[in-house]
Amino acid sequence: MSTIKTFQAVNPANGKLLDGIFANTSSEEIDAVLKNATKAFETYRKKDSTEIANFLDAIADEIINLGDALLERCHQETALPLARLQGERGRTVNQLKLFATTVREGSWVDARIDTAIADRLPLPKPDIRQMLIPIGPVAVFGASNFPLAFSVAGGDTASALAAGCPVVVKAHPAHPGTSQMIASAIAKAIEITKMPKGVFSLIQGNTNEVGAALVQHPDIKAVGFTGSFKGGKALFDLANARPEPIPVFAEMGSTNPVFILPNILEQKATTIATGLANSITLNGGQFCTTPGLTFIQKSSVATAFTADLAKAIEAIPATTMLTEGINKAFHDKINSTTQSQKIQFIAKGQESTSPNQATAQLLRTTAVEFLAEVSLEEENFGPSNIIIEATSKLETLDAANSLKGHLTATVFGTDADFKEYSDLLAILEKKVGRIILNGYPTGVEVCPSIVHGGPFPATTALQSTSVGTNAIKRFARPICFQDYPENLLPKALKNNNPLGIWRLKNGTFTK
Amino acid sequence: MSTIKTFQAVNPANGKLLDGIFANTSSEEIDAVLKNATKAFETYRKKDSTEIANFLDAIADEIINLGDALLERCHQETALPLARLQGERGRTVNQLKLFATTVREGSWVDARIDTAIADRLPLPKPDIRQMLIPIGPVAVFGASNFPLAFSVAGGDTASALAAGCPVVVKAHPAHPGTSQMIASAIAKAIEITKMPKGVFSLIQGNTNEVGAALVQHPDIKAVGFTGSFKGGKALFDLANARPEPIPVFAEMGSTNPVFILPNILEQKATTIATGLANSITLNGGQFCTTPGLTFIQKSSVATAFTADLAKAIEAIPATTMLTEGINKAFHDKINSTTQSQKIQFIAKGQESTSPNQATAQLLRTTAVEFLAEVSLEEENFGPSNIIIEATSKLETLDAANSLKGHLTATVFGTDADFKEYSDLLAILEKKVGRIILNGYPTGVEVCPSIVHGGPFPATTALQSTSVGTNAIKRFARPICFQDYPENLLPKALKNNNPLGIWRLKNGTFTK
Repeated sequence: MSTIKTFQAVNPANGKLLDGIFANTSSEEIDAVLKNATKAFETYRKKDSTEIANFLDAIADEIINLGDALLERCHQETALPLARLQGERGRTVNQLKLFATTVREGSWVDARIDTAIADRLPLPKPDIRQMLIPIGPVAVFGASNFPLAFSVAGGDTASALAAGCPVVVKAHPAHPGTSQMIASAIAKAIEITKMPKGVFSLIQGNTNEVGAALVQHPDIKAVGFTGSFKGGKALFDLANARPEPIPVFAEMGSTNPVFILPNILEQKATTIATGLANSITLNGGQFCTTPGLTFIQKSSVATAFTADLAKAIEAIPATTMLTEGINKAFHDKINSTTQSQKIQFIAKGQESTSPNQATAQLLRTTAVEFLAEVSLEEENFGPSNIIIEATSKLETLDAANSLKGHLTATVFGTDADFKEYSDLLAILEKKVGRIILNGYPTGVEVCPSIVHGGPFPATTALQSTSVGTNAIKRFARPICFQDYPENLLPKALKNNNPLGIWRLKNGTFTK
Repeated sequence: MSTIKTFQAVNPANGKLLDGIFANTSSEEIDAVLKNATKAFETYRKKDSTEIANFLDAIADEIINLGDALLERCHQETALPLARLQGERGRTVNQLKLFATTVREGSWVDARIDTAIADRLPLPKPDIRQMLIPIGPVAVFGASNFPLAFSVAGGDTASALAAGCPVVVKAHPAHPGTSQMIASAIAKAIEITKMPKGVFSLIQGNTNEVGAALVQHPDIKAVGFTGSFKGGKALFDLANARPEPIPVFAEMGSTNPVFILPNILEQKATTIATGLANSITLNGGQFCTTPGLTFIQKSSVATAFTADLAKAIEAIPATTMLTEGINKAFHDKINSTTQSQKIQFIAKGQESTSPNQATAQLLRTTAVEFLAEVSLEEENFGPSNIIIEATSKLETLDAANSLKGHLTATVFGTDADFKEYSDLLAILEKKVGRIILNGYPTGVEVCPSIVHGGPFPATTALQSTSVGTNAIKRFARPICFQDYPENLLPKALKNNNPLGIWRLKNGTFTK
């Protein structure tokens, strides 16, 4: 019998251990959790959409009911500012409510009906109907950088529950206390709305083994993950090596290239430099969409822009990072990158004044070097940016063409720039999930139109988004009912459309 | 320098070589093909939907223009009856036209618009718009059992081209001549509709290496496959092991369980036995949806049903199979299955009268044995069925619960049966892509509501269908445009909706 390992949360601002002892979940416990989840699935998948919507709303209410104690614990575990955490709580609650609204409205199931034609020749046409149904118990991995909005009751959990799937969350070991508080809010919501208990479970652990055991469990039918490339890719590989491979929706971050075109640079260099410095360093650059690469073309204006950006970066205070590990990895990568003589150091932000703080970093290289050194495209999670100077439009396009998959690309330009660089926009469409014009990639709007996703290595599932209402579809699959009598059809597919949802009936959208 | 290997098609009805020498495509040739496909993608993905629709219609026309020569060659290569091939040609042409209609109508791109709110607090809301765009060059593998409808210009090719993706088809080595004829029809359509030449290419080969090289090529962005579990799983593993993993939509067949419930068995045993015998043996049982398992409950009526089914099977003539390999594998598996003393041999069809014919086979075992011996659930491609006798409702439900993923499940029942066995229907919803009540699984309707797919091992992509209009979505992914000015937006997302498509605008479906 093995000894159960325990761990405590660490306050990243001072390195001190926080209250609460958390145990690594054992394989036997994961078995028990999945037994409950699988049992709960039988009840939960048959719930009316209003019941599921009420459950999601109740989770939102119970999170608010946790009050300031939640924000304080979260602040202690993450060092993220209270104002930011307040905003993130608002976003978490709004996401839950958005999915409640989506489920209540109901059209997301993509109901399709093709009625029978009994006298068709040579063969009668059967009655065929299709809708999305939940995929089964989902494993969700909490993210370090969004302890609320991408963690225990974050977007993955909200969308999986909305789809009708039980969820097992593996808490991020950097904020186990926050995770436990949110789990208690969900437990209350389960009680209040009379949901089956196994519909949600939290497991803790600070080793890779716990997460691996969860993903390898045969009763898990899909995985949601937000985190590092290494972590996401490892889960993807594990999931594909299972006897029954399962989909892994891993959002693994990216470097989010920014292109500043020549005319706009002439007109707005200082404004863009200020905005970009903020976007690069917001919350220590610890966003999936932090811009890590800035492409410009060599010119006197570009030189002035670089000076502006340098000046703006120099004014940025050092930021306490989420974990010591993240801070160390950030500075290690800066050090290894700047060992190359082809990478120039341009500016750095204010020095750290307390433990575990990162100093913002601005580097520069050439497009030729960028094309030669693939590691420059890799994400360095933290407040840094590399300016890539091209000597021509062609070099800029070559650099864009060489890009792998990213979550976002941003282009600053005037009308004339966009006309001149239409090829660039066309190239970027193949590389990313979202293109922002004359804005900043940080700040991901939660709405039906958003795409938070993109080609590999940004994610392992380029056909999906992990933010916005479409995220629900990750945890559903189509099923088709052939020649079902009216009384056996699910409500979404009954003749008189009792749910009043949009349906594709004999090829026409109707309600 | 390696010698290029060549091969010829074999007439499965007499073992004789057919005219035409085909060369295994080399890696260098695959490189060249992908260079053309990638170049063509740049033009093709910008084509108007009407141009793509016209191209698909032109392919359909040119296939018809091949005339009876196509059917004759196809018959020589597959031994499938001419009448069946005529029907399959009709289906192939109709599929192309259905996708043309889908593309022309245009709403498949799932356009979503959330307009800006400049004065929103605390931050302005940006303008965000989303639509589906083509994923890039697609590799399609022709299937042996559908030389037209699931091969060179079959559903995978039609849906990928419809989505805006170039296609490279690896022809099935059992019907290279048919494949070449269809490819020539597509080439004509390319010429007539002025499409870029690289938008379609055919490669030949009778080794696994050719297909592997295609899937591993970095410019291939998705794979469509219909065939054996072994083949599909191998491609899935190769695709996931790439530096950039890509989605594989492999439809790998299944055993398509049929459940006949007690009351209907009392009322319609003979009718069902006749229909089922036809479904089991249609075209030598060489369908993805051929029923291979029949679950009944022990009773005197069940015994009579078994006798009826045996009688119907005994009347079935032997069928020339698609290839010698398929025929050998079929009889080998029958032999290995019947070596178990727990598997009873019940009946066989008429003996073969010419080379390479398969004789229909009917076996029987108990639900207990089915639960104990997992290999009984595996597909045996050909005209056979195993009757699984349960001694109780509980045993029937246990057997259903034990099932892995299948394309279809079929249940015969009266109203009273379905009431009594509602648990069975609920279980089957978790196991398959399509449930048929009081019908037969063979015959897959091509329409918006169909699902031809299902959980692993039926497919590697349970969230998709390979038949019906939804198949187009396999080859597309969402992209999001943030704060794009009107003139830079694609037509599908422009303010005045010039394409007249259904769009989700600020949360409401409008046209």
